Amino acid sequence: MAVIKTEIRSGAYFDSVILMQLQRSLANLPGVIDAGVVMGTQANLELLDQSGLLVDEIKAARSDDLVLVVKAEKEATAQDALGRVDELVAARRSRETAGEDYLPKSLESAAGMLPEAAWTLISVPGRYAARVAREALRLGKHVFLYSDNVSMEEEIELKLIAAEKGLLVMGPDCGTAIINGVGLGFANQVRSGPIGMVAASGTGLQQVSVRIHQLGGGLTHALGTGGRDLSSRVGGITARMGLDLLERDSKTKVIVLVSKPPDKQAAEAILDFARTLSKPVVVNFIGYASNLRQFDNLVFTTTFDETAKTALELSAQPVLESSQELIPLDQFKEDQRYLRGLFSGGTLAYEALLILDYYLPGVYSNAPINKDFRLENSLVSQEHTIVDLGEDEFTVGRLHPMMDHELRVKRLEAEAADPETAVILLDVVLGHGSHPDPAGELGPAIQKALKTALKAQRHLEVTVILTGTDEDPQDLDHQEKALTAAGARVFRSSDAAVRFVGKLLRELEKRTAPELAAPYQQVSLKSLSGDFAAINVGLESFMESLKVQEARVIQVDWKPAAGGDTDLMALLEKMKG
Amino acid sequence: MAVIKTEIRSGAYFDSVILMQLQRSLANLPGVIDAGVVMGTQANLELLDQSGLLVDEIKAARSDDLVLVVKAEKEATAQDALGRVDELVAARRSRETAGEDYLPKSLESAAGMLPEAAWTLISVPGRYAARVAREALRLGKHVFLYSDNVSMEEEIELKLIAAEKGLLVMGPDCGTAIINGVGLGFANQVRSGPIGMVAASGTGLQQVSVRIHQLGGGLTHALGTGGRDLSSRVGGITARMGLDLLERDSKTKVIVLVSKPPDKQAAEAILDFARTLSKPVVVNFIGYASNLRQFDNLVFTTTFDETAKTALELSAQPVLESSQELIPLDQFKEDQRYLRGLFSGGTLAYEALLILDYYLPGVYSNAPINKDFRLENSLVSQEHTIVDLGEDEFTVGRLHPMMDHELRVKRLEAEAADPETAVILLDVVLGHGSHPDPAGELGPAIQKALKTALKAQRHLEVTVILTGTDEDPQDLDHQEKALTAAGARVFRSSDAAVRFVGKLLRELEKRTAPELAAPYQQVSLKSLSGDFAAINVGLESFMESLKVQEARVIQVDWKPAAGGDTDLMALLEKMKG
Repeated sequence: MAVIKTEIRSGAYFDSVILMQLQRSLANLPGVIDAGVVMGTQANLELLDQSGLLVDEIKAARSDDLVLVVKAEKEATAQDALGRVDELVAARRSRETAGEDYLPKSLESAAGMLPEAAWTLISVPGRYAARVAREALRLGKHVFLYSDNVSMEEEIELKLIAAEKGLLVMGPDCGTAIINGVGLGFANQVRSGPIGMVAASGTGLQQVSVRIHQLGGGLTHALGTGGRDLSSRVGGITARMGLDLLERDSKTKVIVLVSKPPDKQAAEAILDFARTLSKPVVVNFIGYASNLRQFDNLVFTTTFDETAKTALELSAQPVLESSQELIPLDQFKEDQRYLRGLFSGGTLAYEALLILDYYLPGVYSNAPINKDFRLENSLVSQEHTIVDLGEDEFTVGRLHPMMDHELRVKRLEAEAADPETAVILLDVVLGHGSHPDPAGELGPAIQKALKTALKAQRHLEVTVILTGTDEDPQDLDHQEKALTAAGARVFRSSDAAVRFVGKLLRELEKRTAPELAAPYQQVSLKSLSGDFAAINVGLESFMESLKVQEARVIQVDWKPAAGGDTDLMALLEKMKG
Repeated sequence: MAVIKTEIRSGAYFDSVILMQLQRSLANLPGVIDAGVVMGTQANLELLDQSGLLVDEIKAARSDDLVLVVKAEKEATAQDALGRVDELVAARRSRETAGEDYLPKSLESAAGMLPEAAWTLISVPGRYAARVAREALRLGKHVFLYSDNVSMEEEIELKLIAAEKGLLVMGPDCGTAIINGVGLGFANQVRSGPIGMVAASGTGLQQVSVRIHQLGGGLTHALGTGGRDLSSRVGGITARMGLDLLERDSKTKVIVLVSKPPDKQAAEAILDFARTLSKPVVVNFIGYASNLRQFDNLVFTTTFDETAKTALELSAQPVLESSQELIPLDQFKEDQRYLRGLFSGGTLAYEALLILDYYLPGVYSNAPINKDFRLENSLVSQEHTIVDLGEDEFTVGRLHPMMDHELRVKRLEAEAADPETAVILLDVVLGHGSHPDPAGELGPAIQKALKTALKAQRHLEVTVILTGTDEDPQDLDHQEKALTAAGARVFRSSDAAVRFVGKLLRELEKRTAPELAAPYQQVSLKSLSGDFAAINVGLESFMESLKVQEARVIQVDWKPAAGGDTDLMALLEKMKG
């Protein structure tokens, strides 16, 4: 009959690679049936239970206790096995260090030995990780923080220190990154190319980068942020610094931003920032629903595959929006800042409201998306306004505005006379059933409106969405020419017209808004270029994989200070300053 | 000094074209400054006010009163002008009917004169429209109901009658449709091609169809439904019948479905129906946010432009999903219906949960999207389960599952032994830092799992997401071969893997669900083919534009029955049966 023997070592620290290897060594000893070597967490005890290794003596173990269990055929075998633990650990240690140079005991001496190291990889257990990271930042190193079980408070503290110094803290719980072709942590060997990534998601970063490679593309850099970076409390400190860095990196042409669904406010803030960049940004906030796939330089995707494909398409052709230049803003008077949209098509009006929601603070309408912006009186515009003149209220005993332009002509005149109007947006819908010559009636009205504004020394922008085909009875080209001759800017894509108007009006609003300074020091571009060199604290496999990639790395022979006594460690750190 | 003279005619009915022309004729009389001819609605009175024509005598006018206002330099001129109203109307009438054949006074006699007419266009004022539509349905005609101001109750009643007879009611407030190249109402002249449309949006239909044409594509048919069809109360009756019709129409290869954001329940129902179709469906529910751009045959778009482009791309290459055939279902035992996903990558697990949400009723997880589906115990699966073994709870003092497969190997065995498990889904992440040979450990475990199932005479499906590049140290091809040899189905796209699994499991669930009969009679395909012929009741311009398109049409010389007296009309209709 099998016998189980156990031992608990309180506060003992072993690297998890060592734990795994120790467990395997014990299990492979002759006469041993099974063995368990784990930290005494609830989950680990349950796993021991599933393997039939959970006996009463170890049920009270705590998470920082090392639990050793051996199941053997005979009591003596089990007891012997436990007795060999220290020997097995020591044997591994000597194998490991054989042929190795002297290993520094501290980060500081490691930094002295490899001063070119701009990065520190940290994968010590979570309860020690923040201390090591703080030390790395003090030494001016970027931090790749693989460790999990690090508190939110510590994360925020570390990221704020780093932001002040222009350093990146990738993590905690950051599994992966690629810097100039060198993979940190878990990372795939990905071709070099024009796509840069910022990811609050380890396997998200891996899967997207792998698909980009599989589809023939490649990466500049991929910066992990840790999964909580886009939470409300952390507020995307690392994501923002990473985006800023890739924006300045001349080799990066397209940026990919991946995260699990972020906090709403943090998402809005990071998207607002991303929109200020000059490069296309493909956003995959997995599970985040955007009701507009694209605006400005942002494109939203929903799966890793779609993200990779979209990034590749954009890297081949990085132009997102109509190339229409923004017209000079100084033509407009200071009071001119409002849109007046006079629509005949209800859903065209609705689409315009939808798109403008991403450009303007709010647009009033007689058919608003958001009820707070219902026009008090459909006949009178207020601030930004889009009025649908085809709504029932206007069509009782009156022809539809696609057939009868009277209402629009009158309203056009009124809006042009308003000193706050900057842009008038009209749809002109051709086709069977519609007015036989809309430009014949609207053209002169547009001319008159422009004259009215000009008399008051204002520049007025009249933008037209022209809906029609070259086979329509009204003669599309003639309509376009006549409207253009009258002074309107004509678009055939409703989408492009509204984005043009949205951008223009946003710029007009910005004239009065002060620019805010960045709440961080920019990361030096040099961090990304040249040969990669790093200090590694924790999992030796990370050091080994850096060596395989021909990067320079120095391993710290790290042990928790003060034998892992947290109070004593805090005291020591305090004394250091 | 100018003088204003007015007249109110109670309950007088005039076509809105006539009102517009009358207004212009009056305004053009010598000595007349301005004129107004409108129905006395609130909005119209306000418009008169803006033009300075609202005098006390007409302020009390009601919506079904005809209001006549003339402003002239002299009182006599104004009075004269008003006196000429009947003469001007009569003159127009005689001009209109000159050269016309005899116009039938009723729908019934029109139907007798043009029996081939399968369609009736109705654009009489809203308060009379339902009666005319009911009559058209009684005569077995499809209805294009342009009229607005028709009640929701009437809409539902008409659509239910039509559904029973296999007839379409497009509307009320349906501005546009294209049947076999012929535009009804407001419609553009669009090239013939493989794209069919169903739209609860007039200008949405127009703009998308125009953009398809402009980009070189074309349409089979475009069916309007009226803007309220996808409301909760109407429930998409017409949209569903229209989709069904286009599914059966052999020339239609891709379907576009456009609407303003529908009621949530109605949207889900119509999307559930659309997913049963064999053709790709491009869905633009303007303002509707989907957190997955594509599933099954559905692709979500957000603007008209994007909709047109996507439809065109799909019409060139109508395959949406991986062409992977669904495996035979009868291999699985009746009890086998659950997924067990064992992940090492947190965001890969999250993406899988997101996608599966569109295929399965609910998936339990230790990191669920929806908190109701949190696993009671991360170590024990329940129903459909995805467990992320890289979560903090598993990694204290233990290596990450990308490096250490022990947990997965054990769990794989447990899941295979469960008689309810149908599919096991794994991710295998290669790259630096990961295990040097995952297939070397997971392969044998998969083989063993399949053997366990086979012994119990069950077929088990093991699907693997393989994340890696051909430059990764583990040798991607070798890993794939070894996993495949072990009996797993390997995908390199996470997206494709999860969709494959989702579809398979949905099919397994369906084995026990009864098929529901369609709640309508299918519309005959003949309605769409052959020469278009219609009866027109209301706006003559619609008849004229049908003639321009060389369609046969007969105009009904319609007047409200009983002089527009609603009570009397109801009585007359009752007597008719």
